[in-house]
Amino acid sequence: MLDAFFEPRSVAIIGATPKPRKPGYIILTNMKTRFKGKLYAVNPKYKNVLGVPCFPSILDVSDEVDLAIVVVPNRVVEKVIDDVIKKDVKAVIIITAGFSEIGNKELEERVKERLREHGIRAIGPNCLGVYYYPGGVDTFFFREPGTPRPPPSDLAIISQSGALAASIMDTAASRGIGIGAAISLGNRIDVGEAELLPYLRSKGFKSFLLYIEGLRDGEGKSFLEALSLISDSKVLIYKGGRTKVSQRATASHTASVAGSYKVFKDVVEEFGGAVAEDPGEIMAFASAVQYMDIPKGNKLLVVTDAGGVGVQLADALGDLYDMPKPLSKELEVQLPPHVRPNNPMDVGGDADDARYELVLKTLSKRYDLVIVAALLESPGTTPYIADIVKEVQEETGVPHLLLSSGGKYSEVLELRARELGLGFAKGVEEAIAAAKVLWRIRKTKEILAKRLRCQKAISV
Amino acid sequence: MLDAFFEPRSVAIIGATPKPRKPGYIILTNMKTRFKGKLYAVNPKYKNVLGVPCFPSILDVSDEVDLAIVVVPNRVVEKVIDDVIKKDVKAVIIITAGFSEIGNKELEERVKERLREHGIRAIGPNCLGVYYYPGGVDTFFFREPGTPRPPPSDLAIISQSGALAASIMDTAASRGIGIGAAISLGNRIDVGEAELLPYLRSKGFKSFLLYIEGLRDGEGKSFLEALSLISDSKVLIYKGGRTKVSQRATASHTASVAGSYKVFKDVVEEFGGAVAEDPGEIMAFASAVQYMDIPKGNKLLVVTDAGGVGVQLADALGDLYDMPKPLSKELEVQLPPHVRPNNPMDVGGDADDARYELVLKTLSKRYDLVIVAALLESPGTTPYIADIVKEVQEETGVPHLLLSSGGKYSEVLELRARELGLGFAKGVEEAIAAAKVLWRIRKTKEILAKRLRCQKAISV
Repeated sequence: MLDAFFEPRSVAIIGATPKPRKPGYIILTNMKTRFKGKLYAVNPKYKNVLGVPCFPSILDVSDEVDLAIVVVPNRVVEKVIDDVIKKDVKAVIIITAGFSEIGNKELEERVKERLREHGIRAIGPNCLGVYYYPGGVDTFFFREPGTPRPPPSDLAIISQSGALAASIMDTAASRGIGIGAAISLGNRIDVGEAELLPYLRSKGFKSFLLYIEGLRDGEGKSFLEALSLISDSKVLIYKGGRTKVSQRATASHTASVAGSYKVFKDVVEEFGGAVAEDPGEIMAFASAVQYMDIPKGNKLLVVTDAGGVGVQLADALGDLYDMPKPLSKELEVQLPPHVRPNNPMDVGGDADDARYELVLKTLSKRYDLVIVAALLESPGTTPYIADIVKEVQEETGVPHLLLSSGGKYSEVLELRARELGLGFAKGVEEAIAAAKVLWRIRKTKEILAKRLRCQKAISV
Repeated sequence: MLDAFFEPRSVAIIGATPKPRKPGYIILTNMKTRFKGKLYAVNPKYKNVLGVPCFPSILDVSDEVDLAIVVVPNRVVEKVIDDVIKKDVKAVIIITAGFSEIGNKELEERVKERLREHGIRAIGPNCLGVYYYPGGVDTFFFREPGTPRPPPSDLAIISQSGALAASIMDTAASRGIGIGAAISLGNRIDVGEAELLPYLRSKGFKSFLLYIEGLRDGEGKSFLEALSLISDSKVLIYKGGRTKVSQRATASHTASVAGSYKVFKDVVEEFGGAVAEDPGEIMAFASAVQYMDIPKGNKLLVVTDAGGVGVQLADALGDLYDMPKPLSKELEVQLPPHVRPNNPMDVGGDADDARYELVLKTLSKRYDLVIVAALLESPGTTPYIADIVKEVQEETGVPHLLLSSGGKYSEVLELRARELGLGFAKGVEEAIAAAKVLWRIRKTKEILAKRLRCQKAISV
């Protein structure tokens, strides 16, 4: 049913224009680049826009149209919706703003009801719409070429804030972090999170990053059911509106009534979704967690050439994870006298790649999660540490998180980590955030599994 | 007394070498580039290293030598220290490792006692030493050209972890963040934090970032006194060793016995030093706080073109700061109908520079701290928003924090902010960290002022 949004065969952009900086121009340019199906422009002023055939109305398009993208001024939206209904498109993305978010509730209600009556599905209004790599759909009208798109991956973002989704995509692109889909929902007159999650899961997406300000009355149940349906995925939800002040903000932003954060968190965790504690966890999820397996237990090993960074990681994670000291005679014999087995394991300022390899190959298999903080300031270390980490991860099946911090050297290391599909954290704080998220995901999965076993026992 | 370390007239590098990748090569290269006084190399194998005259022993240098930098292998350190004493240098930086940190306590004690006997001051051993921009001293042997030095500023870093200091400098350089001095203390046989803080303050430094794992017996009192002496400065201290695991790590890292974190925090705050809650606050201090005035009160305004970012800031800061709604009729009249005065103030996805200017010029003066989260995705906004923020900050005297997030556009905005000397945060989490640190610094200054008033009242 949602295929018309994500894998349409034909798309009409109503409000396409050759005027740069206008959303109708940016969306047409994006779609021309990425979309492989049939593309039509609709605008009474032109016969052709940027090489795409243009029609006065969508009714003049002779082909069937699966998806209509609406970027016209607010005052003509109702007329355009009439045409869309007559044309019998399957789905419509309404980018145009100026609906309930500024008090125009009647207009929104009318559009919503008319589309529903005719069985036409809708995303928006007041949104950036859909970025979906596999189907070549891209209605995100933020500025190219300054903001290139990220490489594809099986991470999907669903956001009630378009600017936030755009900013995550922009950061991800600049760091080589993959994102396969991003949906900005806007005022949500029809399609919401509950329907999107299992749909995207069925398309192969396995990591989900959600920004939610609020759910509508009656939506809660279907949202939790959706979480259960994708319980084999990694899910992180940032819930906006935690303080009185921020609840006031969500009311004017997406007209959402943000409920109690604590209630939301407790309930969501029961259904296998992890809730973000702070905004930093969003990028940590994209940068590291999406690429990593969930740890099978709670034993953490930290390996580093920077003693202070090891201490900071142990400061932040030492009470959350078990960090037993390695008891390895074989390792002790092979290390130089000034480097002793410990956890955090300080491999020394004179460490080289070979010493990292020795330590990881000996110790990683005895832990459930390994953080390798390679600051690369030691002259003997190189970005090929990423390759060693990858190899040990494959041999042991233990998830590894590679951490670097600083300027150029850490950029090179990140580049190599991305090539290898490793979980990577830029800076100690991102590594801490990633480890906390992994811990929370593991915990929520355990809670869910326990509850399901319980239900089974009762039903028997 | 400490001038010999920071503003020496003549420096000898004992262990200078033409072999790249060796610390003795990197330090000589750095000093050649930056140091304006007389420079000598000491190494029996060469008569000249990289164009610098080289002598078999420091005793062969005919001139007086203020500062000796020791980068020889550990086994010849004692012989070199003998020569240094005979030469009667004023100060010595011992880069060489292999002392108490690996159990060689007797060697360390001997070196310490002999130097003290002869009144020679020492930094180290087992350290990166001193980076001091005003005096052109640079013994940080991390790798050039991959790790360029940051631009100068009145921020000084004093760190018990060399790698951490190096990593902060590296990140700062890559973002154009200023650092004027960085001291890696190593095993601290002589010079410590207590002496450095007032010394650097007397040289014009006003922001201090400290990484401390532990203080030696009897050092606590002088450290607190030093904090009192620099109470007109901004100080942020990251205290390593907060969990049992990380305390085990500090023991093997710098042989520090990390005391109770809570006791440390409480006591330090009494003396006007703010303690960092997490590692992310370190870069937030360098990037934003060092460039900003301490807010005079607790009223925070958030202005943004990204609704979701406004919500996140209010989530994290809404309980810490007061965020009253602006009551501005004049503003209401001038804004388009879909943009209403609020806090966080969402200027809308269609905002341009002029709208930011209108809002800031009308509202900033009524608050104590303003965060401007300009995501620059709106086609009407430009990096000159930084200039508007700077202008309003100067007109009102209210500290402003500019926040951007994402890829290329945010880099351009950061560049402009750096040129203007504005507080800048990269990403929502860095802005939150900066606002929390500013709040804590204000609080500690208040605690200190109250205590001083109290003492005065008692003594009268």
